[in-house]
Amino acid sequence: MAAVYTYQQLASFAKNIFLQMGCNEANAETATKVLLSADLRGVDSHGIARLTGYVRLWEAERINANPNIRIVHETPSTATVDGDKGLGLVVAPAAMQIAIDKAKNVGSGWVSVKNSNHFGIAGYHAMMALEDDMIGIAMTNASALVAPTFSVEKLLGTNPIAVAIPAGNEAPFVSDFATTTAANGKLEILQRKNLDTPNGWVQTKEGLPSTNANELKNGGALLPLGGDRDHSSHKGYNLGAIVDIFSAILSGANYGPWVPPFPAYVPMPEGMPGEGIGHFFGAMRIDAFRPAEDFKLHMDKWIQRFKSAKTVNGHERVIIPGQPEAEFEIERMANGIPLLQSVVDDLNQLGKKFDICIAY
Amino acid sequence: MAAVYTYQQLASFAKNIFLQMGCNEANAETATKVLLSADLRGVDSHGIARLTGYVRLWEAERINANPNIRIVHETPSTATVDGDKGLGLVVAPAAMQIAIDKAKNVGSGWVSVKNSNHFGIAGYHAMMALEDDMIGIAMTNASALVAPTFSVEKLLGTNPIAVAIPAGNEAPFVSDFATTTAANGKLEILQRKNLDTPNGWVQTKEGLPSTNANELKNGGALLPLGGDRDHSSHKGYNLGAIVDIFSAILSGANYGPWVPPFPAYVPMPEGMPGEGIGHFFGAMRIDAFRPAEDFKLHMDKWIQRFKSAKTVNGHERVIIPGQPEAEFEIERMANGIPLLQSVVDDLNQLGKKFDICIAY
Repeated sequence: MAAVYTYQQLASFAKNIFLQMGCNEANAETATKVLLSADLRGVDSHGIARLTGYVRLWEAERINANPNIRIVHETPSTATVDGDKGLGLVVAPAAMQIAIDKAKNVGSGWVSVKNSNHFGIAGYHAMMALEDDMIGIAMTNASALVAPTFSVEKLLGTNPIAVAIPAGNEAPFVSDFATTTAANGKLEILQRKNLDTPNGWVQTKEGLPSTNANELKNGGALLPLGGDRDHSSHKGYNLGAIVDIFSAILSGANYGPWVPPFPAYVPMPEGMPGEGIGHFFGAMRIDAFRPAEDFKLHMDKWIQRFKSAKTVNGHERVIIPGQPEAEFEIERMANGIPLLQSVVDDLNQLGKKFDICIAY
Repeated sequence: MAAVYTYQQLASFAKNIFLQMGCNEANAETATKVLLSADLRGVDSHGIARLTGYVRLWEAERINANPNIRIVHETPSTATVDGDKGLGLVVAPAAMQIAIDKAKNVGSGWVSVKNSNHFGIAGYHAMMALEDDMIGIAMTNASALVAPTFSVEKLLGTNPIAVAIPAGNEAPFVSDFATTTAANGKLEILQRKNLDTPNGWVQTKEGLPSTNANELKNGGALLPLGGDRDHSSHKGYNLGAIVDIFSAILSGANYGPWVPPFPAYVPMPEGMPGEGIGHFFGAMRIDAFRPAEDFKLHMDKWIQRFKSAKTVNGHERVIIPGQPEAEFEIERMANGIPLLQSVVDDLNQLGKKFDICIAY
């Protein structure tokens, strides 16, 4: 059961909610754009379905609607940013812009952020670099749901990495993925359908293999990309660890098992060593390495070669990273964004609280 | 059957071979150090066992023993380096040093390299940054053995990524892995023992699942980290693609299916779009983000927390990336490096050719 809304309807609703939270006009606009980019690109778990979650964090006074986002340490190519407990949806684009500005000056820019919150989809921030003919990189840590290889304890978040790379005539290359075998959103889909997971997605609270999509509720854990040691889960663990360290130990945010949870009802970890959650952003000017036109010519050739690869029987095409999401964006901008009835109900309740109607 | 040699015996042999190839003293010294760091760290596939392979590339005139390694394009934080067909073992440390020098000046340095060859283990180069309290990053593309998700064709190399991060009292964090489920070296071990692979390591030439460790010889392919779509092989494919693009499309090296093969007897791909193989290096000064002492304090805390995590029954510890390799290094420096008889035979033959004895 799904209702379909236009982008404009959802954007107007979300922006009004952010304004009600006390965001200024510009920040409400930015937060809306970042949040809805997930719905447009087909990443339904990270879009408007999370709006209530952000409001709850604000109600719990874990979000500052008018943050003073500032550089606390810098060099010509790097900066550490204090997000001042702002919405990650606002802090992240500001920090990414600093990376882009530094890249304009000295070829590349690298920004580590503390004292922030959930920033929506990583891909949005990485893609900000594309307009300036730059490669964009975005990552964030998150509260611990993932057990490193051989661990029973959950010590890492799903810690996504996004990389956006400009092309010429082809659409840009945009990779954006959680460093686990499966993102939490995929698990939720199976939960709703009452289906088992493939092996290698989750483990029990004792660390045994499981295919129960509800294993996290039993104290189990998500598994790093790879799933188990035979399939190189240590590589997914390493990737998640690198994201954690770049995002939080460089900046002074919380890391590992101390990252604050997104759901406001989950108690905060004890003995937190830092401030808020952490992100990491990078921007590299293409023409800091070679003329942008040369790069784009070869990037197009790369994409065309991979696109035209002979496929395994039963599969239509080899997918270029970002291609399905770009197709979603065109389709949903034209035909609207479908929302599950449970999401609509949730948004209606939120609207009632603030006296805002989801669609006029 | 294995013979054991001291580090010094193997180093002296390798250096003499590099000198015979026409390397100058300094380059022969560097090449030896990089090559043998693999043997010391337990990555036997990338160490002295490959010496004959490098000699064959030199005999085939694909390696220039006295390269003019030079910057062809740069900004304060970036550079593109032409390796002049040099040994990757020599080109890579030179390029990494440029990244480190740039980081000293402006906080970070990023170097893309063309016209190079196989560079040994990525971890060596990333670890160069540690001495200067920097995070080091190293990656390289390689000839195509890997089929992207849904592809029958092999379009990517095993394209490793290494990240080295300084700590305080703890040993540094050093992650170094191929972006495939299993590295080629692991496959070779199974081949020698006549054992099957776990699922998700290889596919047949039609793209069907296989557990045959010899599948590559039948026209099959290695699989990206994840193995199949259900286990998110698209993430491994994305990682391998990012390494390829950073290493080769930024620099002007060959990419995708056009990367020249390491074995000198394998014919070069047709229609190569660039020069040699490509690498990518990065260095970020810790104190470009926060005081190094603060960072190290928290890095130690991170490592200690992960080290002390409760383990799954039957497993002794949660491994910190780089820890097993560091233990290998201590053990092998003290007790020597074991070589398979086939490797010893190969080296003896090489020694005969140049009138150099492997151990005096």
